Amino acid sequence: MTVTVPQGFTAAGIAAGIKAGKRDLALVVNNGPQYTAAGVVTKNRIKAAPVLWTQQVIKDGKLRAVVLNSGGANACTGPAGFADTHHTAEKVAEVLDIGSADVAVCSTGLIGERLPMDAILSGVDKVAAELSATGGADAAEAIMTTDTKPKDTVVRGDGYCIGGIGKGAGMLAPGLATMLCVFTTDALIEPDIAAAALTEACRLTFDRLDSDGSMSTNDTVLLLASGASGVIPDVKGFTSELTHACGSIARQLMSDAEGSTKDVTITVTGAADTDDAVEVGRAVARDNLVKTALFGCDPNWGRILAAVGTTAAAFEPDAVDVAVNGVWICRDGAAAEDRSGVDLSGREVDITIDLRSGRDSATIWTNDLSHAYVHENSAYSS
Amino acid sequence: MTVTVPQGFTAAGIAAGIKAGKRDLALVVNNGPQYTAAGVVTKNRIKAAPVLWTQQVIKDGKLRAVVLNSGGANACTGPAGFADTHHTAEKVAEVLDIGSADVAVCSTGLIGERLPMDAILSGVDKVAAELSATGGADAAEAIMTTDTKPKDTVVRGDGYCIGGIGKGAGMLAPGLATMLCVFTTDALIEPDIAAAALTEACRLTFDRLDSDGSMSTNDTVLLLASGASGVIPDVKGFTSELTHACGSIARQLMSDAEGSTKDVTITVTGAADTDDAVEVGRAVARDNLVKTALFGCDPNWGRILAAVGTTAAAFEPDAVDVAVNGVWICRDGAAAEDRSGVDLSGREVDITIDLRSGRDSATIWTNDLSHAYVHENSAYSS
Repeated sequence: MTVTVPQGFTAAGIAAGIKAGKRDLALVVNNGPQYTAAGVVTKNRIKAAPVLWTQQVIKDGKLRAVVLNSGGANACTGPAGFADTHHTAEKVAEVLDIGSADVAVCSTGLIGERLPMDAILSGVDKVAAELSATGGADAAEAIMTTDTKPKDTVVRGDGYCIGGIGKGAGMLAPGLATMLCVFTTDALIEPDIAAAALTEACRLTFDRLDSDGSMSTNDTVLLLASGASGVIPDVKGFTSELTHACGSIARQLMSDAEGSTKDVTITVTGAADTDDAVEVGRAVARDNLVKTALFGCDPNWGRILAAVGTTAAAFEPDAVDVAVNGVWICRDGAAAEDRSGVDLSGREVDITIDLRSGRDSATIWTNDLSHAYVHENSAYSS
Repeated sequence: MTVTVPQGFTAAGIAAGIKAGKRDLALVVNNGPQYTAAGVVTKNRIKAAPVLWTQQVIKDGKLRAVVLNSGGANACTGPAGFADTHHTAEKVAEVLDIGSADVAVCSTGLIGERLPMDAILSGVDKVAAELSATGGADAAEAIMTTDTKPKDTVVRGDGYCIGGIGKGAGMLAPGLATMLCVFTTDALIEPDIAAAALTEACRLTFDRLDSDGSMSTNDTVLLLASGASGVIPDVKGFTSELTHACGSIARQLMSDAEGSTKDVTITVTGAADTDDAVEVGRAVARDNLVKTALFGCDPNWGRILAAVGTTAAAFEPDAVDVAVNGVWICRDGAAAEDRSGVDLSGREVDITIDLRSGRDSATIWTNDLSHAYVHENSAYSS
């Protein structure tokens, strides 16, 4: 269930001493024969040094390795922070005997502080020595921050497979999250196919996850393809499998979001177009009054409608229907079925909003807003 | 300190039985000689019945009376709810011997439920019987919902004065809040002057208050002018005094926001234009990670910068400075002065963000995000 399941990859995760006593440094290596890569990074204009670096090195559609650390985001650290990232990539390149322009760097943790470079550089020697075809699980563990469990996935295609690891529990928002994800595949694909497939898969998965509305400085999703299976996949099929893999990680991120007690699936139907459906879903997903009501197991459709009303989507106020967990408690923009019939005792919450203005739809995933979220984010300086 | 301080106004607030045991129905009457009025309502497309009614009756720039109730928003109640509002206005008109097209209606409370019309209609008789030139304080009390104290203000101009009452503790956002405000003045002004002054005053005050990012279905701000002082004010001076009055109520709303422990003033300087400054201020004010950090007394400038980075405002990531309570903990987009020097023990928090891209500035007011906010909004079905 991880990045070392596809053929052609080794990985490791170790405790380098960046944070006390836990695994904090991961390395994923593509051993070829092909080194195709694609990446999607945060849309935040304040980009961490490793994001700026990775954007540069991925331009040629090739990567040999990705080094990832938790314990520090290396964001808002100025030119010195960028030099640290550069130095890390050069160290990985030296140890693996490859070029530093084929090494992506990802960091996650506290914003605004320099990384302990001694620990990182000696850690690179150590993690490279541990590389193995079974090391994916340790790599997944090494990138955790406030995650309570590692996230991984495997999706099998026709003669190839896709593996993935991810982390992220806060700052999950459209334009990606404080979320680092590495996908690997042994399919034989060219860079332009990889880039198009990854962009499409992210659009339908990570871009539709909005746990807390905050957009991170460090989000990075990478896809590495080794070609080791020798199988050239059908493009549509590959994109679909990759979307499944991204969706699996996205749902794992949602289920482990900081302090959450509900996994909320908001489906907007009857939209004039997909953009309208996404806009409405996001507005509801970001509304703190909706989120606190869900934490309180209150099917408060009035707050949902108030959030819908802030959007520019096509709808008529007196022609909107809302169902919560299958009960249509709002029809024609007013009260309908008895809301006491809505069972919100479980973790899963399904909200359907029918705009009755067209045939398009979209699904947005989010969480509730709980005491534990406030506690974790007022106590954790990140 | 209330709407009955300016000459020409009477008011009352009573317990009509809409909610148990508390004042819940208010009436403010303009006794002339002039009946100029202006109004600003929520930008939410899901507008409550009283908002739709008030938008209609204020079109001619005249109002004789405003009836306000707490205990129910009469929002998302369909045609029947609109009929209830109409009926309420007709009852007030009958009792006061005026036309119903000169009666504004404002409601606040739970969305999606019909009002108890028997209580409202018999309450109108009772509240009209209590009208007095000292009744403003009772009116302010009758419109409270989760407010812990009534809000009122008086500003004195040159030969005239402006009084105001307001309520609102949740759903405070740009485009106004679940916020009902009535301002009165004895200045002699025409409808177009009143409308222009109120729009400008709201733009600089209520529109820059964003407590929790949620936009209400019921927000209404009304200005009634009796002309009883006989003084025709200087337009610029009147707008300035009205802005002071609106600002006073806005700050009272902020200080009494649900569950808040901090009053946060975000000043964005060095902006290319005012829109940029407002956009950046709002993005920071709406960020849950910034808000929870402030609740935890953590001067987390990294989260502030991450929120700035989500905007389209003109700035360079490596040329942004941030001060919290006077300490410049971020310069050039990176750590600067020691953040342990920031004192966040008090209720007042001043954040200054210098975009270093121009000469414009704007101030946005907000609150922190606390356990009490989550508690109140998960327990209170509104």
